[in-house]
Amino acid sequence: MKAAIIFGSQSDASVMKKAADVLRDFGISFSSRVVSAHRHPELLAKTIEEWEQDGTEVIIAGAGLAAHLPGVIASKTLIPVIGVPVASGALNGVDALYSIVQMPKSVPVAAVGIDNAANAAYLAMAILAIKYPELRKKLENSRAKARDDLAKNSLVDL
Amino acid sequence: MKAAIIFGSQSDASVMKKAADVLRDFGISFSSRVVSAHRHPELLAKTIEEWEQDGTEVIIAGAGLAAHLPGVIASKTLIPVIGVPVASGALNGVDALYSIVQMPKSVPVAAVGIDNAANAAYLAMAILAIKYPELRKKLENSRAKARDDLAKNSLVDL
Amino acid sequence: MKAAIIFGSQSDASVMKKAADVLRDFGISFSSRVVSAHRHPELLAKTIEEWEQDGTEVIIAGAGLAAHLPGVIASKTLIPVIGVPVASGALNGVDALYSIVQMPKSVPVAAVGIDNAANAAYLAMAILAIKYPELRKKLENSRAKARDDLAKNSLVDL
Amino acid sequence: MKAAIIFGSQSDASVMKKAADVLRDFGISFSSRVVSAHRHPELLAKTIEEWEQDGTEVIIAGAGLAAHLPGVIASKTLIPVIGVPVASGALNGVDALYSIVQMPKSVPVAAVGIDNAANAAYLAMAILAIKYPELRKKLENSRAKARDDLAKNSLVDL
Amino acid sequence: MKAAIIFGSQSDASVMKKAADVLRDFGISFSSRVVSAHRHPELLAKTIEEWEQDGTEVIIAGAGLAAHLPGVIASKTLIPVIGVPVASGALNGVDALYSIVQMPKSVPVAAVGIDNAANAAYLAMAILAIKYPELRKKLENSRAKARDDLAKNSLVDL
Amino acid sequence: MKAAIIFGSQSDASVMKKAADVLRDFGISFSSRVVSAHRHPELLAKTIEEWEQDGTEVIIAGAGLAAHLPGVIASKTLIPVIGVPVASGALNGVDALYSIVQMPKSVPVAAVGIDNAANAAYLAMAILAIKYPELRKKLENSRAKARDDLAKNSLVDL
Amino acid sequence: MKAAIIFGSQSDASVMKKAADVLRDFGISFSSRVVSAHRHPELLAKTIEEWEQDGTEVIIAGAGLAAHLPGVIASKTLIPVIGVPVASGALNGVDALYSIVQMPKSVPVAAVGIDNAANAAYLAMAILAIKYPELRKKLENSRAKARDDLAKNSLVDL
Amino acid sequence: MKAAIIFGSQSDASVMKKAADVLRDFGISFSSRVVSAHRHPELLAKTIEEWEQDGTEVIIAGAGLAAHLPGVIASKTLIPVIGVPVASGALNGVDALYSIVQMPKSVPVAAVGIDNAANAAYLAMAILAIKYPELRKKLENSRAKARDDLAKNSLVDL
Repeated sequence: MKAAIIFGSQSDASVMKKAADVLRDFGISFSSRVVSAHRHPELLAKTIEEWEQDGTEVIIAGAGLAAHLPGVIASKTLIPVIGVPVASGALNGVDALYSIVQMPKSVPVAAVGIDNAANAAYLAMAILAIKYPELRKKLENSRAKARDDLAKNSLVDL
Repeated sequence: MKAAIIFGSQSDASVMKKAADVLRDFGISFSSRVVSAHRHPELLAKTIEEWEQDGTEVIIAGAGLAAHLPGVIASKTLIPVIGVPVASGALNGVDALYSIVQMPKSVPVAAVGIDNAANAAYLAMAILAIKYPELRKKLENSRAKARDDLAKNSLVDL
Repeated sequence: MKAAIIFGSQSDASVMKKAADVLRDFGISFSSRVVSAHRHPELLAKTIEEWEQDGTEVIIAGAGLAAHLPGVIASKTLIPVIGVPVASGALNGVDALYSIVQMPKSVPVAAVGIDNAANAAYLAMAILAIKYPELRKKLENSRAKARDDLAKNSLVDL
Repeated sequence: MKAAIIFGSQSDASVMKKAADVLRDFGISFSSRVVSAHRHPELLAKTIEEWEQDGTEVIIAGAGLAAHLPGVIASKTLIPVIGVPVASGALNGVDALYSIVQMPKSVPVAAVGIDNAANAAYLAMAILAIKYPELRKKLENSRAKARDDLAKNSLVDL
Repeated sequence: MKAAIIFGSQSDASVMKKAADVLRDFGISFSSRVVSAHRHPELLAKTIEEWEQDGTEVIIAGAGLAAHLPGVIASKTLIPVIGVPVASGALNGVDALYSIVQMPKSVPVAAVGIDNAANAAYLAMAILAIKYPELRKKLENSRAKARDDLAKNSLVDL
Repeated sequence: MKAAIIFGSQSDASVMKKAADVLRDFGISFSSRVVSAHRHPELLAKTIEEWEQDGTEVIIAGAGLAAHLPGVIASKTLIPVIGVPVASGALNGVDALYSIVQMPKSVPVAAVGIDNAANAAYLAMAILAIKYPELRKKLENSRAKARDDLAKNSLVDL
Repeated sequence: MKAAIIFGSQSDASVMKKAADVLRDFGISFSSRVVSAHRHPELLAKTIEEWEQDGTEVIIAGAGLAAHLPGVIASKTLIPVIGVPVASGALNGVDALYSIVQMPKSVPVAAVGIDNAANAAYLAMAILAIKYPELRKKLENSRAKARDDLAKNSLVDL
Repeated sequence: MKAAIIFGSQSDASVMKKAADVLRDFGISFSSRVVSAHRHPELLAKTIEEWEQDGTEVIIAGAGLAAHLPGVIASKTLIPVIGVPVASGALNGVDALYSIVQMPKSVPVAAVGIDNAANAAYLAMAILAIKYPELRKKLENSRAKARDDLAKNSLVDL
């Protein structure tokens, strides 16, 4: 069971770390890379090839602005790609969201919310859990525990 | 290998049929339902339970306007949910996109483009292909064939 | 005469407190809860049931991002639901506004302005005042007093 | 039990008729007027006064473009005002939505979705049902019946 | 020659002061008031009446959020009304811009840029200058002087 | 008393004709030109000069897309410029609205609603009426008559 | 002197033909291809290589939706790339505009207006005219002629 | 080989300096000016004439708000104009982007991303490189070096 996290610029690292943290919490091993789709397409192609060969089963790709990275990856592999729109620059992530989600027919990217790299990790695990029942179990336990915690704190003084 | 297609209103059927057509082309069996998250939450809960039990492995959920359906499903199951924002009403699908993609931490929905139910099917198959290598093979063949067709038609007279 | 305030995440508390403050100023008793529609749907269902039974007559529900909470409540009860879109994340509340206001036919939510929980309280009281003439009187006095204050301060040096 | 429907221009009539149809279905009596907030403020003031005196308990106000009508009414009465943003002109109702929902503190309008006058009627009835238990009963029956119909039609061939 | 500045809330004062500063620079006398269109419609009506009688020839009206003030004034007088959308709240003035500029036929407001109260003053003076040739002269001199200053500073080291 | 109507492209004529119709109804004489700010800046400069000399007192300028025309005129004359954003192309007039209303300090344009050339004419007349009391009278009569008509038709069957 | 026109989908052909028409009018030779960046990245790479070798000096690339094509080309060549956002789908070209214009530092695309392929051709020619003075002359003549035509038709009856 | 940088207001200098820095890094000589299109059109015309005569081959023009500067320049010269939308004011550069990119047919501006003056410089150099092969070489070397640097830093610990 193996995931990958990739993003286009060092400035996305703090957002994407939230995906890494969630994966680690659940014991999912993952590789991580920063590769720009536009500034080094050859390195990106090589990285994807490595993932094809090392058995990577899901890819989390974050990018801001024109945010082509997730789509370019999806055009080169059939491993499912989850795209994280990163809020950077004046349009605050709306540009990245549109660039990630509005992919043409037959080359889909699974978009999550702007800056919501944690959810990319949860989605990656839901996907992996189809194949790995023990992960499904872990996720169910985690949800159950979260519900208990929420229930304990649902009374609030305003 | 089993998928499900669900949507909130009969008026979404023509958009969601595109997902059904793609799944059928690839020989993926699927059930389909129209259930409103808001108008019949009990029926929705019952439907999800059935899917949990019949081995459904991925859910494609389409909705327009406030578009809560995909998120409500994701809150009730760990089966991966792919959300299709349907363009209906004055905001033309921007409302549905935001309502589907901006889910809170730990309850992700995988959003595809507005009205792009075909891509929801392609994404569902990429997800299933992790577990079912023969589907991966089929998808690769389909991509190869599409590339051949594109190459043959790439010269164009303007 | 009884109101309820609910919101999806502890981070919404500072916004929603403004509703509580207004209700307290007018002596309206209310219960308050933090329950996520997505992370604990069962607790939410149970909470709504309690409100049905304890005579709650109006519900103020705040949420950010995909903001399904008010709509999910409205699908489970006929008590009027007032939705407060909370500005959080990169879209700054536009996502929450659309998710709250664009409800499907027959399951309405009464939306107020982004982060404007105070107005949710005023709207709740206008609704309750239909049944409780003494509250109507209080609201009229409050408006009259506010007008006097405004009139006193309407001259301004720029 | 008495409602009122008002809108700013004859061109809004076809949208607002959907509110009238719902109210009629439930046997709620209502008056209806077309009065522009900007083109005849005196007539508007007079109309509101009449409603104050004839026992009107909820007002449904529709408007397009700058859409001040619901807010202007709310500034002149404590009867709850439900605002329907009507999609007209190049901005397709986003202008009307913002003009209706973003009211200042203490003068709330209850906004429903763009062009969704039917929901304004459902919201009006939910509000009236606080005071009139027989209407609450009717609404519950209507919901139950709608659920039965939905359940019968939830299987769909795509 | 007499202008008026009005705005809906004390919190708009710092934006609207820019209009006052420009008018003072050109020696235009003006009255200034803070009156909420929604919270004190009677005081607003009385203020407009005073302006009708004291010979006020142009009104600068600033407002944020739903920003009905300029339109409500325009519905009650034929004195030209210049509207200043004030950026406040989560929508950052887009709501105010739409509420001010999208007025219905025959009741126009002259909108200037968001927070650009200075330009409201310049527009007010261009309007007054039709009648008062000496003001036209002053404006021409000011433009000429500004051009000289710009020309002196147009070389820039980057 | 003299107005001018100008627009950037023959395709704007049907929108701008609404301004001409209103001016004609009130007996205001006006010249009209179609001159592109970008395609013939010299002709535009010459046209403005003519207007300066023939006593034109207010200019109505319509433009779509980048819509620089009203601003370019305002940079060359102190005659008040009213800008009409014309809805054309994919952005449907939002581009034109922003390009017209967001002018820099000291070079204002008075923006009216998208495609609302009729209101540009009403605003032009309100401006002229400062100087020409007989026009003020006409406008008052027109408003009074419009109110009578509205009052007669305010009862509506839905 | 050689240009190229490329676009991602046959459905963009009618928009992109406007670029071809302008280039032909000015006697600029160009090749044209339809190649999807996502569906056939290898063919795209091969096409760009051919253009590098056949002396292509400017590339016009049109795309809709996520619209990665112009950016992906710019990442693979230093030939200037002009991007045409094509209005297709529910977001009507805003998605394509953002995806084309918001490129990361050092990999620029020159964006023109939505669906404005004609302007892409004019921009391409302005770029080529730096090197080819005879084209500069042609463009000047064309502008002069256009001005004459505009001047002849600037008087308009409204 | 000669470029020019121009912008409308001293407040744009810090954004536009990024263009100057890139040009300097590559040894491109450039002149720089701050001239407002609206506040001093004559100085702008004179500046453009100088550039026509001193052999300037590409112009980088930055502006915020209504951002007419790049388009006004493009209407007066056939030297290619690259427009930089500067994020200033409440609309954060969306206004400037639309005003720059949505130019009418035959008067194109090459838009780059909001605040992305560095990319304007890279685009200017790609354009100049058509004529100056040694600059093309420099740009290729710079890209190659950037790729090496990226490759060295592509492994990242999250």
